[in-house]
Amino acid sequence: MTDNLRDALTGLLVGRGAFALVDAAVNSCNPEVESLCNRLGISCCILPSPPSKNLESAAKVWTFLSDNGATRSSVLVNIGGGSVTDLGGFCAATFKRGIDYVNCPTTLLAAVDASLGGKTGIDFNGLKNEVGAFRIPVATIISPGLLASLPFGQILSGMGEVIKTGFIHSSEMARDALERVKALSEVPGRIVEMGDMIRRTADVKLSIVDADPLEKGLRKVLNFGHTAGHAFESLSMERSGEQGAASHGHAVAQGLLVALVISHVRLGLDSIWLDRLASTLRTHFPPIIYTCDDYPHLLSIMSHDKKNPSPDSIRFTLLESPGEPVTDFEVSSEEIRTALDITRDYLHI
Amino acid sequence: MTDNLRDALTGLLVGRGAFALVDAAVNSCNPEVESLCNRLGISCCILPSPPSKNLESAAKVWTFLSDNGATRSSVLVNIGGGSVTDLGGFCAATFKRGIDYVNCPTTLLAAVDASLGGKTGIDFNGLKNEVGAFRIPVATIISPGLLASLPFGQILSGMGEVIKTGFIHSSEMARDALERVKALSEVPGRIVEMGDMIRRTADVKLSIVDADPLEKGLRKVLNFGHTAGHAFESLSMERSGEQGAASHGHAVAQGLLVALVISHVRLGLDSIWLDRLASTLRTHFPPIIYTCDDYPHLLSIMSHDKKNPSPDSIRFTLLESPGEPVTDFEVSSEEIRTALDITRDYLHI
Repeated sequence: MTDNLRDALTGLLVGRGAFALVDAAVNSCNPEVESLCNRLGISCCILPSPPSKNLESAAKVWTFLSDNGATRSSVLVNIGGGSVTDLGGFCAATFKRGIDYVNCPTTLLAAVDASLGGKTGIDFNGLKNEVGAFRIPVATIISPGLLASLPFGQILSGMGEVIKTGFIHSSEMARDALERVKALSEVPGRIVEMGDMIRRTADVKLSIVDADPLEKGLRKVLNFGHTAGHAFESLSMERSGEQGAASHGHAVAQGLLVALVISHVRLGLDSIWLDRLASTLRTHFPPIIYTCDDYPHLLSIMSHDKKNPSPDSIRFTLLESPGEPVTDFEVSSEEIRTALDITRDYLHI
Repeated sequence: MTDNLRDALTGLLVGRGAFALVDAAVNSCNPEVESLCNRLGISCCILPSPPSKNLESAAKVWTFLSDNGATRSSVLVNIGGGSVTDLGGFCAATFKRGIDYVNCPTTLLAAVDASLGGKTGIDFNGLKNEVGAFRIPVATIISPGLLASLPFGQILSGMGEVIKTGFIHSSEMARDALERVKALSEVPGRIVEMGDMIRRTADVKLSIVDADPLEKGLRKVLNFGHTAGHAFESLSMERSGEQGAASHGHAVAQGLLVALVISHVRLGLDSIWLDRLASTLRTHFPPIIYTCDDYPHLLSIMSHDKKNPSPDSIRFTLLESPGEPVTDFEVSSEEIRTALDITRDYLHI
């Protein structure tokens, strides 16, 4: 966490060839980013905004690195949201079989989640992160000033992951996260004063990743809300295209409610948490609409989740109570359908 | 090393979804391979021969895995030469951020080199293995019977790497490798009786890889002959297209001579080794023709080598004597030009 991006970058890049990927929208809101890169001698590749994390973009980044003479000791600096850090991380992980990279997240979602922990990837064959690699960034530099101009929708998306992290950590953190949504809905710019929340959320993630970098076990707790969340995200993308779709964190927030419903039914999670989350979602998060006609398709997407050992088995991370997650919980199609019904009732959709 | 591919595979794949990539030429020479896959319930993707290890092929393999429901616990079995094991290894390393894979090499080159050690990759932007990953196969199953139908040219290619390994290991192994070329030129089919040579060569490589899986230091000895070898290979490919170009091991064999010449000049390597290698090359390996007009281009390709810390510096692995390699030896353009001259004299080109 720093207010001085220049000093933080200078220390990391000294004596190494450096290259940067920059989201065009970040570049136009923060002209100091490109001039900083110029002063530090970093070659910039400006990615059209919003950046697509697909194979075509990856080919463009590899070509940029190759044409500009990047070597195995070069560093790639990813300046943008989760799409940029996922794409850039994957390209760094695979360029000449792997070079170092640094993330400078410019969205709340990236700052508290995507830019941390080394899960990189691109979407492929209609599936999220179907192709990717595990490679931990050498540093993630969070500069809250870069978040000042974020629209409320993007802050909400980040809050989806903040709420998730709260639920897997403790009741107190879950409650705090839900309250922050209210405060931010009144004055979105207050996000720059919430360095404490960003750091705490990032720290929870990093401590989990440190204990399980390759997602063999513990790390699956971070998947809380994501099994249904990814399905909502894909559905929304198919309906509205990449531009109009619900954001990742927004879809995760709705996916959290599905996971809480199943947790209540199967593990006795106190229903007060369902009421609290549903109330926040109804007030602040526009719902991702689905009907029972969508269930077969939503279940099919869930069955493709990378954490499933076979396509016939759908596994959720659930909660006994906030701070007490349970991973690899096998849930039947029937139970998921019921949870999707109950979620619609809660959200009045 | 096994004569029973079926038993070896069955043991590895039990209870896991398995998928295979098979070179079409291997499949038509060895119809038992496809029927074995069918019996073991392995879905096969037959790659057009010779397989191209490029981004388009990688996309095809990822699509094959994704469409057929491969999960993170699936295994990919690569049955073919180095192109198949490099391509399949890369796709396995990146599909859903990494799944296990097994190599079943069907060329001598793959058996003694490409299929071992976890360096995977595809060619990109005109450069060999520009995009790739380090991921060790869970097993490499060498079945000498699969090598029986190899044409002499392909055996020669493998012998390039066998000779290289001989030189970095010991005088005795270097001399033995050169003698085997002569024996094989008389009866290529004798390769199936040379399991001892294949195993010894593979063991030398594996012991080096074990000590340095990510090519931080020691492993660079395996690059002996490859700095100039890769340049010859690229030149030949540009001239003759992928089909008519000199094979990898063939280009490495010629690159070894360049490295021996520099080793003689800079480190006092006994010139008897230059004579011995040159004599073997002149008799058995058709030369890859180049003139002094090609020097700027050859040097430019060498400067792109992944082992160079910067594009201005060209580093070779050299030999003080067989078994005494020296890595990261910086060599000037002038010295490389001189060595290319002397190499042409030795080869009468």
